[in-house]
Amino acid sequence: MSKQILVLPGDGIGPEIVAEAIKVLAAVKDKYQLAIDWQEGLVGGAAIDAEGLPLPESTLAQAKAADAILLGAVGGPKWDQLEMAKRPEKGLLGLRAELQLFGNLRPAILYPQLANASTLKPEVVAGLDILIVRELTGGIYFGQPRGIKTLENGERQGFNTYVYSESEIRRIAKVAFEAAQKRQGRLCSVDKANVLEATVLWREVMEEVAKDYPDVELSHMYVDNAAMQLVRAPKQFDVIVTGNMFGDILSDAAAMLTGSIGMLPSASLNAESKGMYEPIHGSAPDIAGKGVANPLATILSIAMMLRYSLGYPEPADAIEVAVKQVLADGLRTADIYTEEADTRQVSTKTMGDAVVAAL
Amino acid sequence: MSKQILVLPGDGIGPEIVAEAIKVLAAVKDKYQLAIDWQEGLVGGAAIDAEGLPLPESTLAQAKAADAILLGAVGGPKWDQLEMAKRPEKGLLGLRAELQLFGNLRPAILYPQLANASTLKPEVVAGLDILIVRELTGGIYFGQPRGIKTLENGERQGFNTYVYSESEIRRIAKVAFEAAQKRQGRLCSVDKANVLEATVLWREVMEEVAKDYPDVELSHMYVDNAAMQLVRAPKQFDVIVTGNMFGDILSDAAAMLTGSIGMLPSASLNAESKGMYEPIHGSAPDIAGKGVANPLATILSIAMMLRYSLGYPEPADAIEVAVKQVLADGLRTADIYTEEADTRQVSTKTMGDAVVAAL
Ligand SMILES: CC(C)[C@H](C(=O)O)[C@@H](O)C(=O)O
Ligand SMILES: CC(C)[C@H](C(=O)O)[C@@H](O)C(=O)O
Repeated sequence: MSKQILVLPGDGIGPEIVAEAIKVLAAVKDKYQLAIDWQEGLVGGAAIDAEGLPLPESTLAQAKAADAILLGAVGGPKWDQLEMAKRPEKGLLGLRAELQLFGNLRPAILYPQLANASTLKPEVVAGLDILIVRELTGGIYFGQPRGIKTLENGERQGFNTYVYSESEIRRIAKVAFEAAQKRQGRLCSVDKANVLEATVLWREVMEEVAKDYPDVELSHMYVDNAAMQLVRAPKQFDVIVTGNMFGDILSDAAAMLTGSIGMLPSASLNAESKGMYEPIHGSAPDIAGKGVANPLATILSIAMMLRYSLGYPEPADAIEVAVKQVLADGLRTADIYTEEADTRQVSTKTMGDAVVAAL
Repeated sequence: MSKQILVLPGDGIGPEIVAEAIKVLAAVKDKYQLAIDWQEGLVGGAAIDAEGLPLPESTLAQAKAADAILLGAVGGPKWDQLEMAKRPEKGLLGLRAELQLFGNLRPAILYPQLANASTLKPEVVAGLDILIVRELTGGIYFGQPRGIKTLENGERQGFNTYVYSESEIRRIAKVAFEAAQKRQGRLCSVDKANVLEATVLWREVMEEVAKDYPDVELSHMYVDNAAMQLVRAPKQFDVIVTGNMFGDILSDAAAMLTGSIGMLPSASLNAESKGMYEPIHGSAPDIAGKGVANPLATILSIAMMLRYSLGYPEPADAIEVAVKQVLADGLRTADIYTEEADTRQVSTKTMGDAVVAAL
């Protein structure tokens, strides 16, 4: 029986970049005779427009039945005035929670061909290769109680709850230690244990789990210092593990260091390695529909999906080689174009076609 | 009657850098015949060692009686194993809370003489001048309930509460809008209103307060995007206003962009402009006692104190001019030394003496 992929283009540039990724998926299916199939579904603003809800029951059922999910991006100004429970983001957050995709892997890699696209000095970022492991189904994103209430004195108060249990911390710790084992063996856990009790427990559990991974060197860093160190000397890091909120902030900063945010894929995995794959960047409503978005992060998300959830490492490698090839050939979408010699600016579609050709 | 300053050297490099700042304070007192006096107090690890508590009653009483406070830094590995309530940081947090120092002003300025010290490309940071206004007595730092409890299934759970009331948001909004009025008139409020209800209220109140400041242009940005934009194009910002936790992270990142984190002072003000002044950097235990720390952030904190809390703008200006003079003369402590021609590396004490001489 063939493996099923649910494709959720979403909003903004989502549909454009996903279209190119699907071309690539079709090409590797053909070439490697993969037993895979896919169907499309609605999520985010697209689902709100069609069905009034960011995560319709039908989409959730499709997602539960699928072996892997490819997501474009969700959100945009069109839906910004909706109340919290009906926003596009709830579609994404609902999928993460319902499928228990707690392990979010966000690589921040500098592509040598794009060294000039970084705003950091070349010597600071050359060869940068960090993996951020972000806990994705807990912490303040999902903690209860939450809301806005009216106090006795008549003024309103907004509140959220930052909460982690030992088992939630332990399972993301394992993902991070195992990732570090396959890399340089260095894991930095980021918390705010000098202020937040929730992260005191986080630090304790990290230490506990570390005993099972004597080959990994564990260190701890406060989140404010981590934000500084990412700017000062990002190459000191191998793998970073942190909670949902800090991971949201630090992974975006880390991705931007590389100058290649349009290039970076991500995986969100559950305990059985079922996963949702998406570019790290957002829905970029300002450039949606113009055919200028970079499809490579989504194409590379396909590679991650083939490798982590579908068990096809060979076509995954082939896609990554093809992407490097088109970069070496000088093709650049607007976000990574720096007017360098022997490069030229191309559209979303030209970039997708070039990857297919390079395969 | 003369104004009273409480001096809290604290831990790590705190005593060394405060000693130089006090030399400068003594020099301007003499030169401008200022009606000021100061006394020392204990806080943080120093207070724990002497009295068993990070914020002794006597220190709190001194602080309440004082017109302004100068703080070095608190914390270090020596006290890292203590339980939360007895850590050095609680001394600092206790002072902020007890004195209601809710308005934290953290400038991130690139000194032209130090342009090379930044890890960012010169064109990205040349002329950088951002002011981060951080709420300092609310949010998740102080929210109740908090702690670590044991669940029914036997596992432990850590929790904190992120909470802001309208009045807390309104008062920091006013500080930020007023600061923006005195600068370029652009205020960016940073939140996570697509996920956290507490920041939905934050955004609403910012919009409300904006009506009283028609000359200030208000924009909103999600915190993950703000972390990215600080790396991508920091000069787009004039004033940033945000809550306690996001402000902690973003202000450290912003300060590091300038390459001059050893240069940046900060002010924490209450409703009556009583304030605590401290360098943005921490206690740097790794270099403590070596005489190499940069005293300029603390010296510039004296200037802020004279201007904001003591009503002496003239000597404040004079200190800032003197600091620029010593930089122009080529003096550099280790943190800002880049082996440039016509510069030389000097000690903490030489730097302090040079500022006094330049006065
Ligand atoms: C869209 C938003 C809810 C989401 C998040 O905050 O997790 C995004 O920023 C991300 O990082 O995937
Ligand atoms: C020392 C620590 C408690 C403090 C904070 O988190 O506020 C520090 O990082 C700061 O930014 O002033």
